[in-house]
Amino acid sequence: MSKGLTAVSFTQVRFSDKFWAQKQKINKDVTLNICLEKCEKTGRITNFEKAAGLIEGDYEGIFYNDSDVYKVIEGIAYSLMNHPDPELEKKADIIIEKIAAAQQDDGYLSSYFILTAPYKKWTDMDKHEMYCGGHLMEAAIAYKKATGKKLFFDVACRLADHYVSLFGPGRRHWVPGHEEIELALIKLYHETEEKNYLDLARFLLDERGHGHGKGGRWDKGDDKSYYQDEIPVREMVKVSGHAVRAMYLYSGIADVAAISEDAEYRSVLEQLWENVALRNMYITGGIGPSKYNEGFTTDFDLPNETAYCETCASVGMVYWNHRMNLMSGDSKYADILERVLYNGVISGVSLQGDRFFYDNPMESDGTSHRQEWYDCSCCPTQISRIIPSIGDYMYAVDNHRIWVNLYAESNAEINLRNGSVKIEKITNYPWDGKVSVRVFPTVKEDLELFLRIPGWCKSISASINHQAIESLEFEKGYLKIKHNWKSGDEIILNLDMPVETVRSINKVKENTGKAAIQRGPLVYCFEETDNRRNFDQLRLCQNSQFVVENNNQDNITEIKVVDQKNKMTFKAVPYHFWDNRDPGRMKVWVEMEDSDESTFLYYTGSKLL
Amino acid sequence: MSKGLTAVSFTQVRFSDKFWAQKQKINKDVTLNICLEKCEKTGRITNFEKAAGLIEGDYEGIFYNDSDVYKVIEGIAYSLMNHPDPELEKKADIIIEKIAAAQQDDGYLSSYFILTAPYKKWTDMDKHEMYCGGHLMEAAIAYKKATGKKLFFDVACRLADHYVSLFGPGRRHWVPGHEEIELALIKLYHETEEKNYLDLARFLLDERGHGHGKGGRWDKGDDKSYYQDEIPVREMVKVSGHAVRAMYLYSGIADVAAISEDAEYRSVLEQLWENVALRNMYITGGIGPSKYNEGFTTDFDLPNETAYCETCASVGMVYWNHRMNLMSGDSKYADILERVLYNGVISGVSLQGDRFFYDNPMESDGTSHRQEWYDCSCCPTQISRIIPSIGDYMYAVDNHRIWVNLYAESNAEINLRNGSVKIEKITNYPWDGKVSVRVFPTVKEDLELFLRIPGWCKSISASINHQAIESLEFEKGYLKIKHNWKSGDEIILNLDMPVETVRSINKVKENTGKAAIQRGPLVYCFEETDNRRNFDQLRLCQNSQFVVENNNQDNITEIKVVDQKNKMTFKAVPYHFWDNRDPGRMKVWVEMEDSDESTFLYYTGSKLL
Repeated sequence: MSKGLTAVSFTQVRFSDKFWAQKQKINKDVTLNICLEKCEKTGRITNFEKAAGLIEGDYEGIFYNDSDVYKVIEGIAYSLMNHPDPELEKKADIIIEKIAAAQQDDGYLSSYFILTAPYKKWTDMDKHEMYCGGHLMEAAIAYKKATGKKLFFDVACRLADHYVSLFGPGRRHWVPGHEEIELALIKLYHETEEKNYLDLARFLLDERGHGHGKGGRWDKGDDKSYYQDEIPVREMVKVSGHAVRAMYLYSGIADVAAISEDAEYRSVLEQLWENVALRNMYITGGIGPSKYNEGFTTDFDLPNETAYCETCASVGMVYWNHRMNLMSGDSKYADILERVLYNGVISGVSLQGDRFFYDNPMESDGTSHRQEWYDCSCCPTQISRIIPSIGDYMYAVDNHRIWVNLYAESNAEINLRNGSVKIEKITNYPWDGKVSVRVFPTVKEDLELFLRIPGWCKSISASINHQAIESLEFEKGYLKIKHNWKSGDEIILNLDMPVETVRSINKVKENTGKAAIQRGPLVYCFEETDNRRNFDQLRLCQNSQFVVENNNQDNITEIKVVDQKNKMTFKAVPYHFWDNRDPGRMKVWVEMEDSDESTFLYYTGSKLL
Repeated sequence: MSKGLTAVSFTQVRFSDKFWAQKQKINKDVTLNICLEKCEKTGRITNFEKAAGLIEGDYEGIFYNDSDVYKVIEGIAYSLMNHPDPELEKKADIIIEKIAAAQQDDGYLSSYFILTAPYKKWTDMDKHEMYCGGHLMEAAIAYKKATGKKLFFDVACRLADHYVSLFGPGRRHWVPGHEEIELALIKLYHETEEKNYLDLARFLLDERGHGHGKGGRWDKGDDKSYYQDEIPVREMVKVSGHAVRAMYLYSGIADVAAISEDAEYRSVLEQLWENVALRNMYITGGIGPSKYNEGFTTDFDLPNETAYCETCASVGMVYWNHRMNLMSGDSKYADILERVLYNGVISGVSLQGDRFFYDNPMESDGTSHRQEWYDCSCCPTQISRIIPSIGDYMYAVDNHRIWVNLYAESNAEINLRNGSVKIEKITNYPWDGKVSVRVFPTVKEDLELFLRIPGWCKSISASINHQAIESLEFEKGYLKIKHNWKSGDEIILNLDMPVETVRSINKVKENTGKAAIQRGPLVYCFEETDNRRNFDQLRLCQNSQFVVENNNQDNITEIKVVDQKNKMTFKAVPYHFWDNRDPGRMKVWVEMEDSDESTFLYYTGSKLL
């Protein structure tokens, strides 16, 4: 069994496009600063100072607030690569010093327990001690990679060592109520090669479902499935409970499975993935329909107006699908990654970077709007770290081969065993499907490049140096090109990107008689502000004509839907773009007149996914 | 009720593309000459000389062979516009002199009856006297338009006057067994404004279905429906009988309906059109599944291997749909015109222009090949006149507005009431969906242009002088652009042209579990010569990847279908291109693995037509 691929780090990738580079700039200029300010104003930073004894005062806020600070620092770390900013780095350094100061001698760190009830440490599995610890580790690793500074990283290792000293076979049982620590420990293992971290991660995964969870007395009406603790991981076949927790758990399982060649884990993951992707996912890639448990309900229960689709869960989908892609080399996971990234994730933040969606519905009566901050503010800080780390999801490699997963105008320096390859992409993706990939290798031998052909794309053309590629080969959804590359060789890949009318399968009752529109990776929606006069008449029909128009002011491509029969035109904008102008109603799924197949001899029947 | 649009004559349109211009060149250099030679060798020309008493001898060949000579001359006339050729014109002049010489004093002309049994003139309604006469008229009109010479045209008028003198209210009944004369008389009426011709056409249409046909004793087992004589035209709701005859009949009805504002005729035509287009048409636009009656059977009976789809019937579909389009201004008719033209029609001739398909099946066991000539050689001569007359189908006008129906690199000079407009099109259509339309008007006022958005195309973008068009308006499937045009103004129209997987509705039993592929207006097929190793494994599946490749040698765009699961690649070529290389099996419809909708949450569901 293959050990899988390795992601090319964000440190090797630079964006020069109008899409991600722009979002990263706004993330740096606005979002990260807002998150820092809010963390300061809400006592999230001073909690560390208090825990360190540097200042006096009580703990402020919710028990897991440390995690927000870690996530912002992780975001700053990623951001520094593309947008060096000594001021921002200085701010992070200062916070890190406070965090380090708060760490106790044995390595323990949770400002909440230190300040409120040190005697209650490790007594309540749903108080997120390890969840916060995991975010600390992720942030510390990112910060070391970005800046070379080791202070934070050392804090992380001491914290991990502390966990190892307490939990594991022959030591204490523990079932983290909110998963996250598992994937963080694996990250730390990859950085340190310290096997204890891997072992602890594996231990924590296998603790689940054996009755160790909180002495059998979980909150939420003792619904163990909310915490993914109802059955052992190896027996899981169906997603359950809190969506973010589930995503982090599955990511952790995938990390371990990739390392340990654990066929049972892999099989569990594939089943869970099918359950999510084919039965419990919104068209935006969003997951978790219910506000009640912030999570999953029953298969095909995908209401539109009350769709919860927490931004954090969408980011979790990126994490999990990224790992599945690396483990398997299968593009279907990258397809979902792209779908959720371009829709369910980036809808979570306003264009100005200053307001955030916690839940991302498919339809709104006009009352749903982004907010500046939340008491439970996991989503803004989640955004602050995913936007600048897009670079992590672009490329994967093994010793000799390169996989291209995402398309955006960018440069990358990719190291292989026998040399490096510089890759320059020129494209207007996601607004246009033409991608130029120029290759500058120091590698002498033939090199295999795998270009992902997105699941939404059914027809392509491709050339090398303007010559058709002789023997086309596809592998797991990638166009595989083996070639003796010369410096400056250019692949041109054309991904046909028409507007597609999308329907749900019948089992999604909510969407009966409805359709949505998608172009390339982007799901579109209709906002009242663009369709004031006829929002109530909004519908698609067989002969709707789609007109694709660049809106240079907003830097988006709009779709005009022309209903020729009723002489009406509707305007659709990318789903992620919604609620950035005048407030109003919004719909992704709209009525579509029944397709009377008996009146059409021939029809297209291709699938999107 | 509108009197409809007028087609812009082929005399106003010049092609400069690699598609039609190339086919027209081959038609001139090869096909027309072959048809002329064959007409000479088979006695078709000498029949006229014999009838004129210029030489001695018996009639040779089948009783309707005169028509082939007329059709070739019609083809030469169209051809001379784009490809002046004094030699070819001289040949035509010589033949026309022989035809004129054969015409009798009273105007009668049929070399068959003159030579075999003059006393049997007008005794057998299925001996195609008027069918041949109609073709004479069409040829004569074209030749006058192309050359300005009137000899042939005068023959046509004398022939028509002869018909008028014999048939009509208060004179003799007549039901032409093979329609064609009706549409020809209307053409002559438009040229001459002689109302007798219109009246006779109308009379002949209304003669049908009243028991006048051949004294009630038609051949073909007295199946009057074969001759479209079973019920009056005004009561027809369903296609029947011989496909070419039906197409010519419907064309004639449409011509009269357009002139007379006859709502009943229009309603009949719409019903017949729906019956053909939605229940009795192959994906290639071909019609008439049965060899037995060269025509229609029952709705949805569309066998693939035995599909008859006579080339002449496909051309008839062009004629009829052209008239329906002009009458209604509705693009759905032009959609069918385009479909049949690019598939069912041009498959009728080899790339070299020297071999012809009479029937055009959807599948072949390897034994179906184009032939050099036929005893009944209506199809080669039909090809010889349709290819050079494509110019007739490009544009339509009324006094103030211009409709663009077909896209091809070309120039046109279009006359309106208040001036003229020159239109230059630059495009690689049908291989690419981008079309540049440059407008050079002498008209001063605002001018409305209607650009057809093909039925196969669901998404477009459009600009004027690289600015998005402000208020997009669609009318009957056309993009309507009202603008005060300055000389050189450029519209760029992008018609998204991905590869589409096409399915039949369930009622077409033959295609159960099968799919076909189409790109733009072109239906594709799979030939054994391209798929020697895996023709038996040929199939499409959900994750088939389509790769579009230009084959510069053959000047076509090929589609590679990559079956990623089974590691196989299949090659598809345009249907019209088939049987031009090594002989072998061929398929349009191939097995497609059942779409298990339950495993896909979202799928596209757009229709092609």
